[in-house]
Amino acid sequence: MSRFLNLRYKKLTPYTPGEQPQDRRYIKLNTNESPYPPSEGVLTVLNRQAGEELRLYSDPEASELKKKLAARYGVAPENVFVSNGSDEALNFAFMAFVPERIAFADITYGFYQVFSELYGLQTQIIPLREDFSLAVEDYEHIGCPCVIANPNAPTGLLLPVSHIERLLQSDPNRLVILDEAYIDFGGTTAIPLIQRYDNLLVIQTCSKSRSLAGARLGYAIGCKSLIQDLETLRFSTNPYNVNRLTLKMGCRALEEQDYYDENCLRIIETREYTRSKLENMGFRCLDSKTNFLFAEHPSVSGERMYQELKDRGILVRHFDRPRIRSFIRITIGNRKEMEEFLRQVEAILAD
Amino acid sequence: MSRFLNLRYKKLTPYTPGEQPQDRRYIKLNTNESPYPPSEGVLTVLNRQAGEELRLYSDPEASELKKKLAARYGVAPENVFVSNGSDEALNFAFMAFVPERIAFADITYGFYQVFSELYGLQTQIIPLREDFSLAVEDYEHIGCPCVIANPNAPTGLLLPVSHIERLLQSDPNRLVILDEAYIDFGGTTAIPLIQRYDNLLVIQTCSKSRSLAGARLGYAIGCKSLIQDLETLRFSTNPYNVNRLTLKMGCRALEEQDYYDENCLRIIETREYTRSKLENMGFRCLDSKTNFLFAEHPSVSGERMYQELKDRGILVRHFDRPRIRSFIRITIGNRKEMEEFLRQVEAILAD
Repeated sequence: MSRFLNLRYKKLTPYTPGEQPQDRRYIKLNTNESPYPPSEGVLTVLNRQAGEELRLYSDPEASELKKKLAARYGVAPENVFVSNGSDEALNFAFMAFVPERIAFADITYGFYQVFSELYGLQTQIIPLREDFSLAVEDYEHIGCPCVIANPNAPTGLLLPVSHIERLLQSDPNRLVILDEAYIDFGGTTAIPLIQRYDNLLVIQTCSKSRSLAGARLGYAIGCKSLIQDLETLRFSTNPYNVNRLTLKMGCRALEEQDYYDENCLRIIETREYTRSKLENMGFRCLDSKTNFLFAEHPSVSGERMYQELKDRGILVRHFDRPRIRSFIRITIGNRKEMEEFLRQVEAILAD
Repeated sequence: MSRFLNLRYKKLTPYTPGEQPQDRRYIKLNTNESPYPPSEGVLTVLNRQAGEELRLYSDPEASELKKKLAARYGVAPENVFVSNGSDEALNFAFMAFVPERIAFADITYGFYQVFSELYGLQTQIIPLREDFSLAVEDYEHIGCPCVIANPNAPTGLLLPVSHIERLLQSDPNRLVILDEAYIDFGGTTAIPLIQRYDNLLVIQTCSKSRSLAGARLGYAIGCKSLIQDLETLRFSTNPYNVNRLTLKMGCRALEEQDYYDENCLRIIETREYTRSKLENMGFRCLDSKTNFLFAEHPSVSGERMYQELKDRGILVRHFDRPRIRSFIRITIGNRKEMEEFLRQVEAILAD
């Protein structure tokens, strides 16, 4: 820490991204990336002309992309905010809409806690049920904004849209930030609800189902005034937040939805296959509607399973935190990667 | 404004980027972009394999790029922070190092005022001298951090490094944020001073001299503890802030410094040519060491010159602000663009 740091950040604990070790080649099942490349049209964006145009700033309004996202989700372009990955959209949402206190689950995306510390917020941590499901009734009369990952990470569990609507109705003066990063792997988006509820902000990403983690593209969808507020903050921090190539690639990705829908089906299929194999080996897997599995074994700790897999060239994620220490989170790779993963798990259990 | 917006942002006035009208084809001399494309190596980054790898997150440590920037500037990788455009580096610097009050010139980059409002800071606005030069002695005993654009924008005027050093020495307990966005067009960077002064943070960008405005790449260089603080904030907001392609393109650009050095020489040559032509037409031009000229004419207002040029298909920038209303800021384009610009100016003056 330098002697110049603003004291309010003195105790800040930053987010820890999944490890990216460079010591050997790993099968990477630790950061919930897609095993499939972006679609053909997206790849064609990367040509000489687009490269030459990089001398020019990107469109700070992201007009084309907003139009396409709006069309995709049946909303108006004014309902859409575009960000440098969905973490940036979440950051702006915390900044804009959480003046004092925020509620979220005890087990959820770790960045909510980091944003809370960053902005000096009080947090109301609401434990998931014993089975890791989220009880929306626990959020109904708390009188402060909440952020919910749906499906939740790292549990993978999904809330039906009806529960989200119930939550919105329970307190129309309270904002619900809904993080739908994993919604395309078996869930139903709550985006249509923004037409009737001005207290809903839905955040999605192109990092998972659209295979663009490395291009950095997220978005938020909500009523026009919420989006305007986010735009005010964006234009007060970094108006050219999304680069030219990513804007173009996002547009092309939206034109090729079929390809991504097929990938999602393939991932779901591989997930269910992996799950049944793991269950046959004695694992308990939560009912994931995401591109990962959250699994524990009665006889091998999460920490040991993580380490043994790493030694064997497979990266998964382990969270050394209460209630979930016994679990590992396994990103669904392609079929071949999962076969290798299952082989190694079998070998570890046989030891 | 939504009813959910944090009241502290109620009166926030966001930054206004240079206009990007879509109604016709303009000669764009309004946002200080380079007239030359990125170098060949940078363009080769945009291939199919790089596209396919976009399914994976970018390196949150930006290790390769930090190494190359460090080598370029004779510092260690731990002295380098990498950002999504230099506005993001400035934003983090304000957030990290300006707890209460900040000083900057009355005429300088407009974003400093926006960041100050965003973070609720007191501002100490220090007028430039009558001739628009910056008097460092005015910043010596003010007891608060300051941000200085060097060369300054939109004036284009350069401070020698000796003045920066004097400022650093005058109060070793006060941080100086030095914004060197335009340093490559005739200035000398103060980066070597970071070895002796821990109260200096230098911010540069690849948007101007390296022709990568649309790729979004900025960086900050300072002592290790300052950089660590910026990293703490980055990992608490958006760890994957720079996308994969931009990280790679940044690395390639640094391998092809000769190309960019030549471009800078061409731009300087075109600037001096344009300046002498403008002066022959009665303009007063400040002594720019940037890729733009700041010029006023005794008989045509800045507003009118801007508007007439726009009507003729040429975009320049006009700031409707005290002391500089009579000026226009003209980005240096290629020789052909500047010939056309000069022709149109001549026609306007003949009217």
